[in-house]
Amino acid sequence: MTRVGIIGASGYSGAELLRILNRHRSVTVAKAFANSSAGKRVDEVYPLFLKQTELSFETYTPDSLDGIDVVFIALPSGEAMNLVPSIIDRGKRVIDLGGDFRLKEPFLYEKFYKREHTAREYLQASTYGLPELNKNDISKAQLVANPGCYPTSAILSLAPALAHKFVAPDGIVINSLSGVSGAGRNASLEISFVEVNESVRAYKVGVHQHIPEIKAALAKLTGEEVNLTFVPHLVPINRGIYTTTCAELLARSSEDDVRAVYESYYREGPFVRVLRNGIPEIKNVIGTNYCDIVVRIDRDNNRLIVISAIDNLVKGAAGQAVQNMNIMFGFPEQEGLTF
Amino acid sequence: MTRVGIIGASGYSGAELLRILNRHRSVTVAKAFANSSAGKRVDEVYPLFLKQTELSFETYTPDSLDGIDVVFIALPSGEAMNLVPSIIDRGKRVIDLGGDFRLKEPFLYEKFYKREHTAREYLQASTYGLPELNKNDISKAQLVANPGCYPTSAILSLAPALAHKFVAPDGIVINSLSGVSGAGRNASLEISFVEVNESVRAYKVGVHQHIPEIKAALAKLTGEEVNLTFVPHLVPINRGIYTTTCAELLARSSEDDVRAVYESYYREGPFVRVLRNGIPEIKNVIGTNYCDIVVRIDRDNNRLIVISAIDNLVKGAAGQAVQNMNIMFGFPEQEGLTF
Amino acid sequence: MTRVGIIGASGYSGAELLRILNRHRSVTVAKAFANSSAGKRVDEVYPLFLKQTELSFETYTPDSLDGIDVVFIALPSGEAMNLVPSIIDRGKRVIDLGGDFRLKEPFLYEKFYKREHTAREYLQASTYGLPELNKNDISKAQLVANPGCYPTSAILSLAPALAHKFVAPDGIVINSLSGVSGAGRNASLEISFVEVNESVRAYKVGVHQHIPEIKAALAKLTGEEVNLTFVPHLVPINRGIYTTTCAELLARSSEDDVRAVYESYYREGPFVRVLRNGIPEIKNVIGTNYCDIVVRIDRDNNRLIVISAIDNLVKGAAGQAVQNMNIMFGFPEQEGLTF
Amino acid sequence: MTRVGIIGASGYSGAELLRILNRHRSVTVAKAFANSSAGKRVDEVYPLFLKQTELSFETYTPDSLDGIDVVFIALPSGEAMNLVPSIIDRGKRVIDLGGDFRLKEPFLYEKFYKREHTAREYLQASTYGLPELNKNDISKAQLVANPGCYPTSAILSLAPALAHKFVAPDGIVINSLSGVSGAGRNASLEISFVEVNESVRAYKVGVHQHIPEIKAALAKLTGEEVNLTFVPHLVPINRGIYTTTCAELLARSSEDDVRAVYESYYREGPFVRVLRNGIPEIKNVIGTNYCDIVVRIDRDNNRLIVISAIDNLVKGAAGQAVQNMNIMFGFPEQEGLTF
Repeated sequence: MTRVGIIGASGYSGAELLRILNRHRSVTVAKAFANSSAGKRVDEVYPLFLKQTELSFETYTPDSLDGIDVVFIALPSGEAMNLVPSIIDRGKRVIDLGGDFRLKEPFLYEKFYKREHTAREYLQASTYGLPELNKNDISKAQLVANPGCYPTSAILSLAPALAHKFVAPDGIVINSLSGVSGAGRNASLEISFVEVNESVRAYKVGVHQHIPEIKAALAKLTGEEVNLTFVPHLVPINRGIYTTTCAELLARSSEDDVRAVYESYYREGPFVRVLRNGIPEIKNVIGTNYCDIVVRIDRDNNRLIVISAIDNLVKGAAGQAVQNMNIMFGFPEQEGLTF
Repeated sequence: MTRVGIIGASGYSGAELLRILNRHRSVTVAKAFANSSAGKRVDEVYPLFLKQTELSFETYTPDSLDGIDVVFIALPSGEAMNLVPSIIDRGKRVIDLGGDFRLKEPFLYEKFYKREHTAREYLQASTYGLPELNKNDISKAQLVANPGCYPTSAILSLAPALAHKFVAPDGIVINSLSGVSGAGRNASLEISFVEVNESVRAYKVGVHQHIPEIKAALAKLTGEEVNLTFVPHLVPINRGIYTTTCAELLARSSEDDVRAVYESYYREGPFVRVLRNGIPEIKNVIGTNYCDIVVRIDRDNNRLIVISAIDNLVKGAAGQAVQNMNIMFGFPEQEGLTF
Repeated sequence: MTRVGIIGASGYSGAELLRILNRHRSVTVAKAFANSSAGKRVDEVYPLFLKQTELSFETYTPDSLDGIDVVFIALPSGEAMNLVPSIIDRGKRVIDLGGDFRLKEPFLYEKFYKREHTAREYLQASTYGLPELNKNDISKAQLVANPGCYPTSAILSLAPALAHKFVAPDGIVINSLSGVSGAGRNASLEISFVEVNESVRAYKVGVHQHIPEIKAALAKLTGEEVNLTFVPHLVPINRGIYTTTCAELLARSSEDDVRAVYESYYREGPFVRVLRNGIPEIKNVIGTNYCDIVVRIDRDNNRLIVISAIDNLVKGAAGQAVQNMNIMFGFPEQEGLTF
Repeated sequence: MTRVGIIGASGYSGAELLRILNRHRSVTVAKAFANSSAGKRVDEVYPLFLKQTELSFETYTPDSLDGIDVVFIALPSGEAMNLVPSIIDRGKRVIDLGGDFRLKEPFLYEKFYKREHTAREYLQASTYGLPELNKNDISKAQLVANPGCYPTSAILSLAPALAHKFVAPDGIVINSLSGVSGAGRNASLEISFVEVNESVRAYKVGVHQHIPEIKAALAKLTGEEVNLTFVPHLVPINRGIYTTTCAELLARSSEDDVRAVYESYYREGPFVRVLRNGIPEIKNVIGTNYCDIVVRIDRDNNRLIVISAIDNLVKGAAGQAVQNMNIMFGFPEQEGLTF
């Protein structure tokens, strides 16, 4: 059995990792680190794990990784960069669910994350962990930067169209709706029930830290700069990302043509479902690692509309991280991820 | 006291009309017509009206309008066109909350509403009831077509920018989120709790009947054709419309400049609040006739972003209808609408 | 105009007081005290008040009450007892929405509120502000202890039956469900959206501080000790208390008889609606000062079942406080409270 | 592989059966019958099954059961009694998720279900499928009546206390809260989003068809009649039953003593978790077959309080049905039910 350590195991993504890895047939979770909950049993902090695990949270120290084969880091952005160097030095493979190693340019990190990057030398060495785009690199990676939840839905929505030059690389508009678990597990008035329920609000308009991540991944695909407006919104649901993307069509293709391109592009990706009928709905992907996508053409306005839905904690975080681990370690890509 | 009749008083918009008119100091609701609930007391169908009204629903016949000064029609689209001619013939003033008299072109009505229009001669005679745009016409109108909920939020978001040629009239992208009451009060699997809760879905992408209404109102303002992509979404809240609009900036204006134009444009409109700080949130307009608007500029992508929030049953329906009535009858514009 | 001061105006009950008093025709809110938000405009903290009020929050000092006729205190329990003595000394009338002056016995306060009472001499002087039970005392009171939300629903459910000796005073079971605003406006993991949504939990089973309040008010009515089990639950709604009470029937009365007793008992209470048909639903009382009540008899088990619904922030807090003020100052009891 | 047929596979319980059986290692779902959806693929009606199943719904006829080993019936109560005789005649084993075979007395069925029973001769032959109470009988049964969702939570809450004579068998009060999926998948105004959201309502007070089921199961345990008041409530969540039960304590036991009895009683039941700390929360059992239970003693009122939580579609329906099948066929009891 491959031995897994999770750093930051008591947050929502950490708990989701525990839930998924618990039924993975080739790994065992050997250590669950969570400094704030150290000493407590997992099932004390998350009673849903009663009778499911005997693990307790413990304090992280680099030495406690002895015997661990792969480390998941599920900490708020800004913390992983302080830990990764010593973990890499010990020869461990690392999957970071935070934002510290997703951008190649330190200045972009500093602009959008509002802090200095303290492990710049690892930025180039990291592999962006979106399996549908770069599975081969992931298989060989030592440090995988697991994509953000919004970028996962936005990049999967646009990749086939941009890669095939179906749409213009500028003037793209991406509207995303996120469930509240995306804000993490913490005490904050802004995400208290009464403030969020029966309401909707946009936030971080034009300044969200996922913007450069989306742009960089798409630019790498197309070989040219991609310009887009991204507006994230908070909606009163626990989980899910719903992304509606509009881009100018360059060719006068039919919906069937575009769909065929998307189907072909994702033929090897077991977790992207390109819908032939209907429309993505968040409820159809909750608890799963799927990304549901539909393409529509607005002929009057000459726009391609792409709509996608994922579970932000699964395909948008823990599930995709496990998918990356499966690829890195040669396990079946879907192991632990069928529901 | 001006005497009001409501046709279709038992739906959500009808009930909201009853709630608002109940405290209006210049009118009295003389008749509440609702064929399916005829004979029942209002407080039997809506127990929230217990001790608030003695009215009962009755069956509509044209003769029962004797003594009525103004008629609100709150029926599903497609029904008002069969009633309006005889009401107008009787010399009553009419405010129709449905979609039958909003479009000037019968072919557009037939394309988007999927039925023939049976009262085409009244299309030209009707006045589009968006007070912030054409208060003067409303004051003299006999037949007012009360705007749809989505159009109210979209047109108010774009009118100042288009009227002042700040943005290009094509390539506009409008994403809207609607609460479930927008779908009306009826038995349908699609809007049952379990199907809607903890989910989001887009619907009628590119074919929603509010598209030509938005385009026509904006084209009238600018004098040229307006092209836009409109994607409505259903979100799990009872009430509210949240609209995020993106348009290409023509001038390199600052956010302050654009905001000043919006403030000036709505100076006479007591129900539009152009925010200086923060962002619209649905919870701040629920139960009110306000439309909250904020403007933002995405410099990198050269786009104006406008975000607006309304209560779909108030500013998006019953409240705006009462605002129109106030203007038509010379009552203070805010009467009955302060909360 | 009577001049009102609100201490603790930035919490949910404080904001609700502002909303209600804003349309009250006989009072003006002269001061809104909120130390944590002092210096901010009310509409900055609560954007829903934009264009509705020019008030700013200010820091409370006893001297700032000059010119104020009546003071509402909407602070967490434990704070009012430090302020009330000096306010009373200045001759002001006070309505405390917290729990500090509801119990007559300091030892009960200390047992259930887990702190010492620092103004014991005012406990006997205070009047319990449930208008349906003791309107006459309230009209003359200087210090009114506004009831808790759960006690309001529980006492109104049981008062007629116990006063008329229809039910046994022991073995009573009260199950209540509360919306999340009952927990106040604060940053806490326990009331964050994800922790509350799609779930239900009981809390403070058998130890809730409202237990002695309910028992004392009912014992005063019956002249004997009342024993009851009270289980509060948190449910994922913003507002509302739903209380289901079971008590052993002493007489073999019919439902009609019991309902007649309830109707008679509340004949003078404009805000209690004893339902003849249907069942209380929280949605029918939201935003109103009503308490909807229905009585049912479970013949097989010889139990009276009483079900009631209120809005916890209105009849359970701010609305009832205004009702008390109306009684104290001789205003019409419903002033400001019709919706 | 054991071959399974599901009759009524397109409702919420049917879909949950498909979801659970999909990962069961000893069975294969050979047929999914759903007359109203016959001819449609499962993933067309439930897009969440895309890429998960190739099954299509088909019309049920008795002959189509050839080759099937076990039949689940997930139809509304009143329909199974017309199908079961012919299925039993063919020698198939049957698990009925509806209410038709839970009561032994036809007169009770007719009183509470408001229809005549057309297969009375099978009432005595059926086995009540609550594994924690009668696993042995289930293992040999040909016809298992799967318990209702409310009875599962209520009986598991009370069984140890009544079996050990800790509490009086009368004066019991059971308050239950149910998620909306309990009302089934159908078009109905009563369960439309707007009618249910932000509200709570009790229903079928004292007349719910689960009352005789609870009483019968408990009476069988104690050997004497059990009297109880049962009040079900609808709360705005998708899934879950939360049951709070109060009963008069006969012995002056401590909480620890009572908990020890409960733990001992459920020692062999892998799906009952008797909590030592904390309180059941619906979110901790969603998607699982667990029933979480806590016991508390209200010393002042001499009452035992038992609180339990289940997922109504899993332990309250499909999960328990699979647990029964596992017992009937000698599969490991938890097969397919670990999450």
